[in-house]
Amino acid sequence: MRKIGAVIFDGFEMLDYYGPLEMFAMHRDAFEIVAVGQNGDGAQASGGPRTMPDATFSDGTSYDILLVPGGMGTRAELDNPVMLDWLRAACAEAEIVTSVCTGSALLARAGALDGRAATTNKRAFDWVCDVAQTDTVTWKQTARWVEDGKFFTSSGVSAGMDMSLAVIERLLGKDAARDAALWAEYEPNTDPNNDPFALEESDT
Amino acid sequence: MRKIGAVIFDGFEMLDYYGPLEMFAMHRDAFEIVAVGQNGDGAQASGGPRTMPDATFSDGTSYDILLVPGGMGTRAELDNPVMLDWLRAACAEAEIVTSVCTGSALLARAGALDGRAATTNKRAFDWVCDVAQTDTVTWKQTARWVEDGKFFTSSGVSAGMDMSLAVIERLLGKDAARDAALWAEYEPNTDPNNDPFALEESDT
Repeated sequence: MRKIGAVIFDGFEMLDYYGPLEMFAMHRDAFEIVAVGQNGDGAQASGGPRTMPDATFSDGTSYDILLVPGGMGTRAELDNPVMLDWLRAACAEAEIVTSVCTGSALLARAGALDGRAATTNKRAFDWVCDVAQTDTVTWKQTARWVEDGKFFTSSGVSAGMDMSLAVIERLLGKDAARDAALWAEYEPNTDPNNDPFALEESDT
Repeated sequence: MRKIGAVIFDGFEMLDYYGPLEMFAMHRDAFEIVAVGQNGDGAQASGGPRTMPDATFSDGTSYDILLVPGGMGTRAELDNPVMLDWLRAACAEAEIVTSVCTGSALLARAGALDGRAATTNKRAFDWVCDVAQTDTVTWKQTARWVEDGKFFTSSGVSAGMDMSLAVIERLLGKDAARDAALWAEYEPNTDPNNDPFALEESDT
């Protein structure tokens, strides 16, 4: 049983977060989902309702899998040292670290992606590369998601579902990933290099 | 500006709910999302965290669009007269009524689908037809979603995203639906009759 620390903050993007969680929740014998917030107040989704945490940052940083969504709220979190410190510590402990959309900007700013390849939302690409404030991340312009060791960073919003199925495949096997998609009546993109939303052909 | 009443109850399915809301939230100038619960306690998602309501049933039944998700929690709600009465009244007032997955069982039990064609999750199909306790709904076994007048019922989980884009297309036009999918980096299934998850060829 692996524990998933699924991070919330005000302005997180709804589908970035709940798309991957839906896929993981299809295997409840394998994954326990824990929503983690800086405090117990919950987090207002970008354009949507409030999600309440199951745990707070002060409860610790020990999760087997991390999920970091993107959304407009990442802009504020980039300057939140409590968030960045927690992410840095939790990334060091985790077996697998995942991000969706602009969530990779937070991982990069926390220094967790140093020396790694990663991707992000294609319509926020230049912004993410800029605000990450690091030249040690290799940002991929054409990728549905990027796997580099324990890091799985995905492109925008819906790409998180495909990325989470790749995580399930690595941990539980191909059949388990196929079953999760089938039960969710989801037609996955199973090729990380098939990126219909890339804006340019070549990587930076 | 249309107000979307997005119903929550314990055991609602995460992607049934947040998939469509993500698509609607891409047009914030056109849609206001209001999470509606029976009371103010919020609702624990099936396998996931708690979502808090923006309004409760006692605040009224006046919404332009309704969203009714499915999930394991529908089983309890089928015997909840407060839920069924609220749905019946809200459906009568709404311009558009949508459901995802087993959410259509709740609409059917409330009598809102009498004389209509509808669909639901393909792996819960027989269960839904049975618990709906009505022979006046024409259940479609092969459909990604079904439009019948103001009712848009979708197949399982992920199908809600395709259905919500069809609602956006009807209300705001084809370009608006295409833009919402693009911004979410989502490759939609735009054909309601293209159902890759149908278990049988013919309709009942």
